Amino acid sequence: MAKNPSWILKSYATGMPSPDNWVLEDLSMPEVGDGELLIKTMWLSVDPYMRGRISPAKNYAAGIPLGGLMTGGGIGEVVVSNSPDFQQGDVVISDYFGWQAFTTVPVASAKIVDTKQAPVQAALSYLGMPGLTAYFSLLKTGAAKEGETVLISAASGAVGQIAGQIARIKGFDPVAIAGTDAKVEWCKELGYRTGINHRTSTDLVADVAAACPNGVDVFLDNTAGPIHDAAMLNLNTFGRVAVVGTIALADKFDQPDVGLRHLRQTLITRARIEGFLLDDFEADYDAALVDLSSWYEQGVLQTREDVAQGIEAAPYAFVRMLKGENFGKQLVEL
Amino acid sequence: MAKNPSWILKSYATGMPSPDNWVLEDLSMPEVGDGELLIKTMWLSVDPYMRGRISPAKNYAAGIPLGGLMTGGGIGEVVVSNSPDFQQGDVVISDYFGWQAFTTVPVASAKIVDTKQAPVQAALSYLGMPGLTAYFSLLKTGAAKEGETVLISAASGAVGQIAGQIARIKGFDPVAIAGTDAKVEWCKELGYRTGINHRTSTDLVADVAAACPNGVDVFLDNTAGPIHDAAMLNLNTFGRVAVVGTIALADKFDQPDVGLRHLRQTLITRARIEGFLLDDFEADYDAALVDLSSWYEQGVLQTREDVAQGIEAAPYAFVRMLKGENFGKQLVEL
Repeated sequence: MAKNPSWILKSYATGMPSPDNWVLEDLSMPEVGDGELLIKTMWLSVDPYMRGRISPAKNYAAGIPLGGLMTGGGIGEVVVSNSPDFQQGDVVISDYFGWQAFTTVPVASAKIVDTKQAPVQAALSYLGMPGLTAYFSLLKTGAAKEGETVLISAASGAVGQIAGQIARIKGFDPVAIAGTDAKVEWCKELGYRTGINHRTSTDLVADVAAACPNGVDVFLDNTAGPIHDAAMLNLNTFGRVAVVGTIALADKFDQPDVGLRHLRQTLITRARIEGFLLDDFEADYDAALVDLSSWYEQGVLQTREDVAQGIEAAPYAFVRMLKGENFGKQLVEL
Repeated sequence: MAKNPSWILKSYATGMPSPDNWVLEDLSMPEVGDGELLIKTMWLSVDPYMRGRISPAKNYAAGIPLGGLMTGGGIGEVVVSNSPDFQQGDVVISDYFGWQAFTTVPVASAKIVDTKQAPVQAALSYLGMPGLTAYFSLLKTGAAKEGETVLISAASGAVGQIAGQIARIKGFDPVAIAGTDAKVEWCKELGYRTGINHRTSTDLVADVAAACPNGVDVFLDNTAGPIHDAAMLNLNTFGRVAVVGTIALADKFDQPDVGLRHLRQTLITRARIEGFLLDDFEADYDAALVDLSSWYEQGVLQTREDVAQGIEAAPYAFVRMLKGENFGKQLVEL
């Protein structure tokens, strides 16, 4: 095996990404610049938002240049610190891990992970970006209230599995949309009242109507596509749609998304469709993490991981997550 | 001419309505029931929302049954009152005027018009539904702030002409989209900074970008259709879209609206698309009317009417308004 196996972006994906969009190169140990840490990678996170990073299309953050090191969220152990705030041996999380065995991250992006509170990789799932996304999209953007029906797509995924459980804890009425019967069954175990397998449904609009007899008050949209349409056509007056992710567009990311437009439905229901980006809620992360970790400690919040092994697995894990072949939060363990 | 010429809905419109969807019948003088007023019609208002009333599609209010009397907003003089609150000779406004020379309206729907404050028909334009719609959609749903760029479609129409002037009065930066060069020029006279003729534009996305060099903060969408797309593709981070009307769908009202879906754009900008219905703001009508009438008295709010003459003209006036052939608030004077 190479000294520092590292995944380099070779081509932008058109349609569904494939592991061929990257090439595994043997790089030397990174030089540690000012304001950087050298890290031995322990965990990498692959998440839907990273689809936008390997596209030349305009996005909310800059993409990765061709020939550049692929980056994403990760956890690892500090090997060399150029900062008084971090010591060798500290376990840190950052959104700027390279997909490599040894990597550098900007000190400003790194936070120490409390290794006693929970398994360290929890900082990449329910105590991290997906958990916080579920928390704020449901409670702030979606503004769900007790008794309201909350429809959640990609319901067993990293965000959906947490959102459904928060909905149950808060006394909302959560309904799952997922891509296999096994995922739907697991969602019910988590506390979703019922669920729909969108891959076997022959009439998603009718199936959402049947699963939500009081209509949909809040839709947490992790997918876009036809699932969005089925939710919109069942939306209640003053309904709220939080646009959290668009994973159904993963294979047509650089094309305009053409389909039903729901402006008239929006007018009729006076519904609100609102885009969600976690960064906007940074001031409230700490309070949310207190809730999430106490629910976990109380045993009312479960989490499921789907772990691929080794740096070699990274692009494969990413692509299977985009295709919905994972079951639970997709991670790569080194 | 007939004793009480009345327009009866003969068929639901498929595509663009035509005067043939109604038939003019000679009805006898209406019987005045309990809780009703008999009114001699002076003015009828034709408004885009009425397209939804002549369709079997689901809407926010019930449609008019085939064979039923066409109804809409109007102003007239009380001939017979079955209520102590109204006397013969009072001039009243109601949303439930029949399209007929003499009509009955429910007492609960009627309000006395102050005939000294302004021309009576102002209660159907800047002091009524269109003016209030402009006021609340811009200031509440759109939540425009000083200095922000406000893009307004159907900008010279009943709602748009008032919204653009409120935007100017409040120190926003209003930009018009209208359907003729003459309308665009008049919008500039009203105080819109600039404007776009969407019928002659060959690249509406680029033209909106050029007219809004700081991007679009608030879009008052009176049209839907390609104008909506052009606005969405120029929307700023945290932009707001108030879906006020969908007149561009007037000729395809009963078909699903297919086109660009802007979920990813919503996510990237964290924009909010929200449906608007005036009724939701009823508690604040009085305060808004104080503003609107004082602006008019100060001479900073102008209004333009397009008046058709006679009950015979009602469906023709309605259809020309739907086609954008009117210039200013379309009224029918009896």
